[in-house]
Amino acid sequence: MGEFELIRRHFQRAGVAQPTQVLLGVGDDCALLQPTPGHQLAVSTDMLVEGRHFLADVGPEALGHKALAVNLSDLAAMGARPLGFTLALSLPRADDAWLAGFARGLFALADAHACPLVGGDTTRGPLNLCITVFGEVTPSRALRRDAARVGDDLYVSGRTGEARLALEWLLGTPWARAAVGTMLPSDLRARLERPMPRLALGRALAGVAHAALDLSDGLAGDLGHILRASGVGAELHLAALPLAPALAALPEAERQTCLLGGGDDYELLFTAPPSARESVQAAAQASDTGVTRIGAITDQPGLRLLAADGQALRWQAVGFDHFA
Amino acid sequence: MGEFELIRRHFQRAGVAQPTQVLLGVGDDCALLQPTPGHQLAVSTDMLVEGRHFLADVGPEALGHKALAVNLSDLAAMGARPLGFTLALSLPRADDAWLAGFARGLFALADAHACPLVGGDTTRGPLNLCITVFGEVTPSRALRRDAARVGDDLYVSGRTGEARLALEWLLGTPWARAAVGTMLPSDLRARLERPMPRLALGRALAGVAHAALDLSDGLAGDLGHILRASGVGAELHLAALPLAPALAALPEAERQTCLLGGGDDYELLFTAPPSARESVQAAAQASDTGVTRIGAITDQPGLRLLAADGQALRWQAVGFDHFA
Repeated sequence: MGEFELIRRHFQRAGVAQPTQVLLGVGDDCALLQPTPGHQLAVSTDMLVEGRHFLADVGPEALGHKALAVNLSDLAAMGARPLGFTLALSLPRADDAWLAGFARGLFALADAHACPLVGGDTTRGPLNLCITVFGEVTPSRALRRDAARVGDDLYVSGRTGEARLALEWLLGTPWARAAVGTMLPSDLRARLERPMPRLALGRALAGVAHAALDLSDGLAGDLGHILRASGVGAELHLAALPLAPALAALPEAERQTCLLGGGDDYELLFTAPPSARESVQAAAQASDTGVTRIGAITDQPGLRLLAADGQALRWQAVGFDHFA
Repeated sequence: MGEFELIRRHFQRAGVAQPTQVLLGVGDDCALLQPTPGHQLAVSTDMLVEGRHFLADVGPEALGHKALAVNLSDLAAMGARPLGFTLALSLPRADDAWLAGFARGLFALADAHACPLVGGDTTRGPLNLCITVFGEVTPSRALRRDAARVGDDLYVSGRTGEARLALEWLLGTPWARAAVGTMLPSDLRARLERPMPRLALGRALAGVAHAALDLSDGLAGDLGHILRASGVGAELHLAALPLAPALAALPEAERQTCLLGGGDDYELLFTAPPSARESVQAAAQASDTGVTRIGAITDQPGLRLLAADGQALRWQAVGFDHFA
């Protein structure tokens, strides 16, 4: 199987409806897009490397899903609607069965969000997946990191920490094995391997929320990006964080590690003024996504973590750093 | 140096003018772009891997240049004007001197074309560079591969084959060493390491030429993409191909290998109707780029190579295939 046969067999698809904004897809020097008049184009890129973003033995279908999911999550955090994506793929070899699984996972998620593959590049080399996604958003409704205001409520969607717990279990970490048991439940594994980008929630929050981002490197560290970009601080009530049943059995320190420092959550962290509480709940209901108020934006810089008794907690808020 | 310090030090730049179409650049979940009203957005992505697209000992400044150049070349081939690019970078380690050189080469070319970095991703892993470029083009003026028409003239910009000769010299190939000598002249090395994307020519040809692409995998193989997409054939006059002085000393077979099968040319191959010959020359002059008429589009499928005496040449037109 040569390069062009590989592309034809696994990445060219006939009969898949394209959004009207996609004028020219795979096969030319460039794809051509035209956002809806008056809309802005949102763009994000993410690169996934074996051993950093996924384990060597991850299934190809899960990997295809996740490579696109983490990119769509960035569109969700901007309040944007997906239009399409490009895929650059470096592969050690042309493995037909692996590619078929990868494409299945990739396109199942792409089709669910009407987000077609519009271009790409294929090369031989160490396994590496680089996706760039394109979406559109109505001007002045994009959810930026620098838009948090003092007095805003702080919210998180879904629950954090399960992906980290699943990862630690797969790595054989004793505290994870002790809490989870000898088998990794499929729903817990899915939180790591098959995150669902919160696109419907993001779009429902556009025009309602102030600042937003998607959680990829841990809640506490990622919240720091909003605080620095907006020039504000926050207090976060640890007891308010939704706790997944799987995390209940963890010792306190490891539970905090998962809740606050766990990567790969792909939930939305956002702020909105107290006057918008009903609108936030309406957005949550419309998108069938749970959201929880977990704190508030303050004018005192930095992040203050508060325990159930109101005492400040010391917790080193360190997000994941590839070169630390 | 951690991940965020690496980004701050080498990839965040203050005081660089952004095109008005770039509303939000590096630092949020997504960049926000807004093409000029009525224009289309052209998008292309290319991934560069050590040992496939560049040699391990290439200088970082040349690599920074080339990683962006090959992407801008795709915009050129579409007749598009650059707006910005994203960079995803996988690095074995955070090497300050290497990164400084890489960024210097990258931004020198970006600044020359007013094409700012608008987003990216940095991770640790085997060296891999994935750039996605964005440009804009007036509707109905984009240069597509499927637009060649029977009777069109066939043109190439600049000269082909020098990058291949330089690569073979660097690899120690005897015929390249014999033809070039014991030193690789810097201008010949530059043809491999510092290709200049033909952006001005591509834009001048938009609305004049029919089909176009940029030469990355060899003239004969890349021409096949236009022929198949357009459902036409071509005859190509070998003696009409511009011959670089460095190629003159090569034996006939190796000269053809360089001219027709050499990768990394990043010249434009395009077709235009005979009625547009003056306009093509005007576009060449306006962009200060040489173009040469080398053949014609025919209704007989396939590529016919003709020698100076009009005899058909047998030449296996095989472009580069990463998985062949």
